[in-house]
Amino acid sequence: MSDKVRIALDAMGGDHGPAVVVAGAELALRSHPDSEFLFYGNAAQVAPLLDARPQLKAAAQLIHTEVAVRMDAKPSQALRYGRWKSSMWLAIEAVKKGEANVAVSGGNTGALMAMAKFELKTLPGIERPAIAALWPTVRGESIVLDLGASIGADAEHLVDLAVMGAAMARILFGLERPTVGLLNIGVEEVKGLEPVREASRILREEKLPDLEYQGFVEGDDIGRGRVDVVVTEGFAGNIALKAAEGTARQMGEYIRSAMSRSLSARIGYLFARSAFRELKERIDPRRSNGGIFLGLNGIVIKSHGGIDAEGFAAAIKLGHGVVREELLSKITSAIGSHHEYQHRAVGGAAS
Amino acid sequence: MSDKVRIALDAMGGDHGPAVVVAGAELALRSHPDSEFLFYGNAAQVAPLLDARPQLKAAAQLIHTEVAVRMDAKPSQALRYGRWKSSMWLAIEAVKKGEANVAVSGGNTGALMAMAKFELKTLPGIERPAIAALWPTVRGESIVLDLGASIGADAEHLVDLAVMGAAMARILFGLERPTVGLLNIGVEEVKGLEPVREASRILREEKLPDLEYQGFVEGDDIGRGRVDVVVTEGFAGNIALKAAEGTARQMGEYIRSAMSRSLSARIGYLFARSAFRELKERIDPRRSNGGIFLGLNGIVIKSHGGIDAEGFAAAIKLGHGVVREELLSKITSAIGSHHEYQHRAVGGAAS
Repeated sequence: MSDKVRIALDAMGGDHGPAVVVAGAELALRSHPDSEFLFYGNAAQVAPLLDARPQLKAAAQLIHTEVAVRMDAKPSQALRYGRWKSSMWLAIEAVKKGEANVAVSGGNTGALMAMAKFELKTLPGIERPAIAALWPTVRGESIVLDLGASIGADAEHLVDLAVMGAAMARILFGLERPTVGLLNIGVEEVKGLEPVREASRILREEKLPDLEYQGFVEGDDIGRGRVDVVVTEGFAGNIALKAAEGTARQMGEYIRSAMSRSLSARIGYLFARSAFRELKERIDPRRSNGGIFLGLNGIVIKSHGGIDAEGFAAAIKLGHGVVREELLSKITSAIGSHHEYQHRAVGGAAS
Repeated sequence: MSDKVRIALDAMGGDHGPAVVVAGAELALRSHPDSEFLFYGNAAQVAPLLDARPQLKAAAQLIHTEVAVRMDAKPSQALRYGRWKSSMWLAIEAVKKGEANVAVSGGNTGALMAMAKFELKTLPGIERPAIAALWPTVRGESIVLDLGASIGADAEHLVDLAVMGAAMARILFGLERPTVGLLNIGVEEVKGLEPVREASRILREEKLPDLEYQGFVEGDDIGRGRVDVVVTEGFAGNIALKAAEGTARQMGEYIRSAMSRSLSARIGYLFARSAFRELKERIDPRRSNGGIFLGLNGIVIKSHGGIDAEGFAAAIKLGHGVVREELLSKITSAIGSHHEYQHRAVGGAAS
């Protein structure tokens, strides 16, 4: 049992519910045969899907629940009617009880975060959790956080985000001292930037051993891959992510329309179709699907709600990877030693 | 004289200084022969460039100044050493004195905004100016503001942005009641969103006659063209803009690398080259160059600092267009009647 990665799935989450979750799990199992799944959802809907997939069924357990959190529910509503009994809650609870190593849900982000916070609680010294994701860049991938778990941030929260993001980069990218930048805008002297500037000062002065702080970065530096970890508060982070996704989609539409406008363009498209296929794969939003909730006593992965089975499989595989790499214990120890370091520094200054 | 559009140019602004500013003015004059230019800059550098362009020289006046605002100067520094005498200051002053209808600069944004605010002052009832720009969408173009003039915004400032942005859309897009959305993130119940939610309530209740408020939009709705005007505070707006620009550049690099990887891709590229040219034009950042400073007693246009002559010409033409369409007086009257409306509404409620 212990050599398996146990993944709790909110089978009712996402726009397409069990159909995508079960099919995604099947794909993930194929590439990661050391997975086991706990499906939380309506048995009448989920069981037939599992019956049609004997291999998956052999690695799965189905726990019936009548309650599913609606995609448009407010977090407080979701907590009111979904606590103790919804598929989302039960998947997170499995992580809390140690029955699963990670939970994955395509459900409503606000509700998922509220439930994860309520059940798993934040790590010692962490006040607010964050959502981190992999962002494709021209150099490879970077980690960006926070993508919307909380709005506004004080300097200490930004520093915690840097520490957690760097721990994640060490694990996922195999780097010893990942580079870290704080997302900012070009204009230097404006009000409202105090927390960002203060966080910058702290990161510069503390010279943390496990990351290399490189100062401010701007929105267009993310896609350039200027740093391994981009730190921002959640409102701007979420808007940056969505604006980039929207632009990628827009460019895809431009390409399609340009390539179908004339005969010679269509001929050119035929010749270059493997190049276009490669391009399409490269900008496929499914490849980087999956936001990791960081800062909690347990790992929860949020999948895009509208994604297909392949995209959901990517979120499951991300969860599998962070379990195998022991992300949680490494982040916990990184945060612990950071706060101990700060404590010593303050103690030293006071004595 | 009065049938000409007089454009004050900060000849020393931007990464390439007079070379790009003068060449850009030449291009703009070619398509807009009713333009006249006031060049503020170092005569030793600017005069030879004008001498080489007799047609432009005939429509130009050169005002010598030794002082140029550095691209990396902080706004307070720039004000200290550049007030009364820098090319940037003098270009704005020409607008204040009525000697020019609009000023265009590729200089440092923070310094330009500080000087514009200092000289031109905000319109009655407007506390803080904003930077607005045209954002290419799959449907055409939208207006997005604020892109970084000020960070953080209360509800009233967001409503003012909506009124000014809608006035700009009526003029530039020829719409009677442009649609307006407030940029937000999907998560509903989080702290920090109060001003955005309050602004939404005001816009919904006031039912302004000159715009159609459509509620919240997310980052990926901008490129979709879901609304004509997207309203946000400046930090998130700037980051959204830069993230989108970065993604467009990143996609351009992906396309280039995909199309050169194999022989058949290169052949395909040749067949489809007019389609690729069209695509390139469509995503050309020079086309949408130019941020308009709104909310001041005068119009100032900020060009990208790193742009070439064609891009700078686009910013000049944008300035020419908003002068011809009387953007300033229309925005002033839109803001005036909005505040009068609010005043009456408050008075009505009190009596």
